Amino acid sequence: MMPKRAFRTAFRVAWVDTDAAGVVHYSNYFRFFERTEEELYRHLGFTFEGAAQKNLWFPRVEAFCQYKKPARFNDLLEVELTVEELKEKSFKLGFKIFNKESSVLLAAGHVIVVAADKRSGKATQIPGETVKKLKPFCE
Amino acid sequence: MMPKRAFRTAFRVAWVDTDAAGVVHYSNYFRFFERTEEELYRHLGFTFEGAAQKNLWFPRVEAFCQYKKPARFNDLLEVELTVEELKEKSFKLGFKIFNKESSVLLAAGHVIVVAADKRSGKATQIPGETVKKLKPFCE
Amino acid sequence: MMPKRAFRTAFRVAWVDTDAAGVVHYSNYFRFFERTEEELYRHLGFTFEGAAQKNLWFPRVEAFCQYKKPARFNDLLEVELTVEELKEKSFKLGFKIFNKESSVLLAAGHVIVVAADKRSGKATQIPGETVKKLKPFCE
Amino acid sequence: MMPKRAFRTAFRVAWVDTDAAGVVHYSNYFRFFERTEEELYRHLGFTFEGAAQKNLWFPRVEAFCQYKKPARFNDLLEVELTVEELKEKSFKLGFKIFNKESSVLLAAGHVIVVAADKRSGKATQIPGETVKKLKPFCE
Repeated sequence: MMPKRAFRTAFRVAWVDTDAAGVVHYSNYFRFFERTEEELYRHLGFTFEGAAQKNLWFPRVEAFCQYKKPARFNDLLEVELTVEELKEKSFKLGFKIFNKESSVLLAAGHVIVVAADKRSGKATQIPGETVKKLKPFCE
Repeated sequence: MMPKRAFRTAFRVAWVDTDAAGVVHYSNYFRFFERTEEELYRHLGFTFEGAAQKNLWFPRVEAFCQYKKPARFNDLLEVELTVEELKEKSFKLGFKIFNKESSVLLAAGHVIVVAADKRSGKATQIPGETVKKLKPFCE
Repeated sequence: MMPKRAFRTAFRVAWVDTDAAGVVHYSNYFRFFERTEEELYRHLGFTFEGAAQKNLWFPRVEAFCQYKKPARFNDLLEVELTVEELKEKSFKLGFKIFNKESSVLLAAGHVIVVAADKRSGKATQIPGETVKKLKPFCE
Repeated sequence: MMPKRAFRTAFRVAWVDTDAAGVVHYSNYFRFFERTEEELYRHLGFTFEGAAQKNLWFPRVEAFCQYKKPARFNDLLEVELTVEELKEKSFKLGFKIFNKESSVLLAAGHVIVVAADKRSGKATQIPGETVKKLKPFCE
């Protein structure tokens, strides 16, 4: 049995990510979540053109984040992604953001993504190949 | 007894709010939440300088949103804010985003905001005057 | 002769527009430019759907801004737009951003917009009706 | 004599960088410029805390970009930075953004950065050590 595992990637906090409190704006953690998801797809060899050709679209239906400690400019963040749920037409991705140098947990959250037909807008089945590739990242 | 009520404001979706799917990027709903909160504070006569002088800071500790229908460029959005919880050191703001023309609910969510001392970073009591002004918006 | 004139609109600086220096991030002035342009189009009765139906697209080919004084959170900005050039296939929009309360000039710049065919990507003629509506805003 | 050279770094276009035209929003090229500048500073061993301690601040006074070809989601961009001018109190950074795979030039521009005293807001001399480190990147 292939062991379940997390996908990890790292980002620097850019100046534009901060706000006048000197910390990363709370909406930007969701952008870090998404960049991590994009890195995972590249890592798995997904071709975004392939999804577009099948008229597939992956909108978010839910987003959640708890903020523990602020991230600041120039911090190196490590983001850990796991697939928390993998259903027929949707999946839930869990994220943890750490300060990579101190290993302190800064934020944790999730997004629920649905597979949708771009023309009808309706939920549709996640392609079998995608399910297969996401499975090893299920907790 | 003063009736409990919602605060409402309206925004246009700007081109920059959209992404390549032709809809508002999911992180931007949190920015609409925050702009509504800012409008409320202005409406209530809060002076942001006053908070700064008291070394008060209002970081978010939780953010949540459910997405029902996409918003698109040039849509007029109506955002409805209510105070869902008002505790000693924190409060929870609930948001509903409607398409103002069709009255269709597009998204609903909340943020939990904590009052914090800017120097120590620790949670502190919400000023009495602020509590008094927020109370009428409690559900 | 109809007098040439500027189009004016006002925006509040949102918290998310600021960065850790406590001022509006320099990239966001270009977003204020664009929001003003969008307000002008609404004011002129342009239908964005109309442009889409004609496969028209209006990409920017040049953007410029000089920054005089910083804008800060909660500042009320007044943006003044004039049409600096109106050519067959492109136009140049000039912008001035003032602090509306103090009337101090904060930033000034321009964008050059080209009319393009969405399928070929090539520059095309600006529709006659658009030219007619933009003319009164030429300096 | 140490040869003059360009600093190069690469970025992926994230989904959030795009707009409803399916291309990178024009304001985001300025954010790519800035991220490249930040990479250069890290490469040169600047400590941002060091600048903060000396009450130094580096606001932009001018920004310019010409857009040649659109960048799209998932494109790998290579950004080339050179120091175009190095004066007593300001410097001009030139940027070229290429599609890294096709080597096609997508955009080119510059920013003018001024060294300023954080308390007075006035322009001040660029520290000698900074000048020394930037010199090899002068064209």
